[in-house]
Amino acid sequence: MPKSSLRGNSMPASPIRKLVPLSDKAKERGIKVYHLNIGQPDLPTPEVAFDAIRNIDRKILEYSPSEGYKSYREKLTGYYAKFNINVAAEDIIITTGGSEAVLFSFMSCLDPGDEIIVPEPAYANYMAFAISAGAVIKTIPSTIESGFALPSIDEFEALITERTKGILICNPNNPTGYLYTQKEMNRIRDLVKKYDLFLFSDEVYREFCYTGAPYISAFHLKGIEQNVILIDSVSKRYSECGIRIGALITKNKDIRTSVMKFCQARLSPPLIGQIAAEASLDASDEYMLNVYNEYVERRKFLIDGINRIPGCYSPIPMGAFYTVAKLPVDDADKFCEWCLKEFEYEGQTVFMAPASGFYTKPGLGYNQVRIAYVLNKKDLAAALEVLAKALEAYPGKV
Amino acid sequence: MPKSSLRGNSMPASPIRKLVPLSDKAKERGIKVYHLNIGQPDLPTPEVAFDAIRNIDRKILEYSPSEGYKSYREKLTGYYAKFNINVAAEDIIITTGGSEAVLFSFMSCLDPGDEIIVPEPAYANYMAFAISAGAVIKTIPSTIESGFALPSIDEFEALITERTKGILICNPNNPTGYLYTQKEMNRIRDLVKKYDLFLFSDEVYREFCYTGAPYISAFHLKGIEQNVILIDSVSKRYSECGIRIGALITKNKDIRTSVMKFCQARLSPPLIGQIAAEASLDASDEYMLNVYNEYVERRKFLIDGINRIPGCYSPIPMGAFYTVAKLPVDDADKFCEWCLKEFEYEGQTVFMAPASGFYTKPGLGYNQVRIAYVLNKKDLAAALEVLAKALEAYPGKV
Repeated sequence: MPKSSLRGNSMPASPIRKLVPLSDKAKERGIKVYHLNIGQPDLPTPEVAFDAIRNIDRKILEYSPSEGYKSYREKLTGYYAKFNINVAAEDIIITTGGSEAVLFSFMSCLDPGDEIIVPEPAYANYMAFAISAGAVIKTIPSTIESGFALPSIDEFEALITERTKGILICNPNNPTGYLYTQKEMNRIRDLVKKYDLFLFSDEVYREFCYTGAPYISAFHLKGIEQNVILIDSVSKRYSECGIRIGALITKNKDIRTSVMKFCQARLSPPLIGQIAAEASLDASDEYMLNVYNEYVERRKFLIDGINRIPGCYSPIPMGAFYTVAKLPVDDADKFCEWCLKEFEYEGQTVFMAPASGFYTKPGLGYNQVRIAYVLNKKDLAAALEVLAKALEAYPGKV
Repeated sequence: MPKSSLRGNSMPASPIRKLVPLSDKAKERGIKVYHLNIGQPDLPTPEVAFDAIRNIDRKILEYSPSEGYKSYREKLTGYYAKFNINVAAEDIIITTGGSEAVLFSFMSCLDPGDEIIVPEPAYANYMAFAISAGAVIKTIPSTIESGFALPSIDEFEALITERTKGILICNPNNPTGYLYTQKEMNRIRDLVKKYDLFLFSDEVYREFCYTGAPYISAFHLKGIEQNVILIDSVSKRYSECGIRIGALITKNKDIRTSVMKFCQARLSPPLIGQIAAEASLDASDEYMLNVYNEYVERRKFLIDGINRIPGCYSPIPMGAFYTVAKLPVDDADKFCEWCLKEFEYEGQTVFMAPASGFYTKPGLGYNQVRIAYVLNKKDLAAALEVLAKALEAYPGKV
């Protein structure tokens, strides 16, 4: 084979997926594995999406426009308006999942060697997309003790160099479930303005905010309209992870022009996915409310349950459907492995994502796990019981 | 806005799409535009694909595995075996279109600054993917006079530096329709072996070979099995451009491991597209033969028609559904623009892709166009008549 670094091999393994082989082996041994590791919603996709797919009436599954169907982009403007996000159809570029929106925004806005600042723990794939784009992610730790609140602006400023081009936030946050307050968003706005940075804002969990206070989008911040690139996806809000439909939204025409070059190179976003996503905009209020209420209940059930286990602690997540919890263990990587490889309680075990994979600084989050609440309450109850038993039995308990 | 080169803006406009706004304007003026510019097949998608989509029976449109569904990859091995391409399911990674297969193979195998050699004219998006990966494409011209045959190996060797990591071929070729012979493929094999290069082989048009001689895949070449990365897509063979399902196939495990990191970062290829693509493997022999026969007839009709127009010349393409033809004009870019902006014949005009966009060296292909024969014969006949009239009327005729 030719000499090459095979770049991908330098990329960290996904913290969500790296233990999948162990989980598969546990299942082969007949053990029931509760999946607390993945963010794949278990709630049904809206019926209107399936109806649209079943009623496809065409002879050819042809390319769609590189920027996505106009009808879909126009209809999306109404969706965003409900969140007080005022955008025109031309501001919206449909992407192959939120993943592609992150990749294309990095590729478009960052030159090789450019830096962006990201509070951590953070969605691990940002790192992969930065490596893909040749960009560098600098991280600032947020802490479980402060409930994963925004780190101080001084810490951001300390990292800013002449190569710093942007800040990335995920709000509501994956993996922590943290929701930035108006004050925090204002601080981000001021920083973006002061240093004229891009603000990449991943807001795919906006439906899942568990507070009466209004949700603050990066698009609500005045004076930085030309700096904001919003990352979106239908995956979570409609349980449509598989259709790979996301969006990149910006009022900055120059950025859109650049992004469109990457869009044209990959020809078009998925056709049938767009049909399903457009139809899903008609999902009933009742459907959306049921999904919301279900997560509200699960959140309370899970967080209360975790905090009742001796030595465990989870802040109350105000959004998304994850939490990062602290466990009384020597090493959460080892503990999660051990749960899958060696432990069982009445033929059951739990699969959690070690939080270390969401941090870049070695040692951070060593005793933390990300737990997703995409299981029904009965399974969550069983999983919590199994977790408590596992912690009792684990040799590395502290 | 922050200072950034907005990388995409340095990328060339797609030669297929850059005149689309002019075409749209012509249509607004009520002119019928014959689309000879795009490779969007007009033939129907197999009914089995629609049946599979309509019969989707699931509650959630969830993530599929990052490497694609196992059932689909297993079934694909039977498809490839028909072409004497012997691969295992584990050698196949399902991608979001052939586009993603090109991008991920570049990103995995090439470090920033690495070079690959590509005969030109070439599919313009290779350049975009190379820019995305930070790699450099070096081109060697093939000429219309030699029917776009493989340039001499000396020319390849003259370009090889310590940064040269691979060769890319598209076979059957887009845009020329050229099909490499056994002798040419052997020469490529020897070169790949001598310098231990990657061989990226885009073979998405393998169904469309118009010769009795056997089709030679890069996978048929002995002794370079670990060097070959095959790029594939269902877009053209089943008229399924919109579902965005392709594949990256290699027997080299290290490359697959690297590619899978990029695959995991983007989570999964489109779910519904995979369902359609898997079902399409059951498309009847009759369907495939009808499609084939249709292209055979169109090819003859088009090429004969072009060569009858005074001053025009097209070699006989032996594969795909394109040809690059020479026109008696001062500048094919200007001529194609003029056809859309200023010309009409009985309310009709033609939209062709200027070939300059498929070359990197300035001046090459200045009087050439790419013509796709994805129109029925009646429309092809009309388009040929319009082209002849346009050439008579064009002020820059030579």
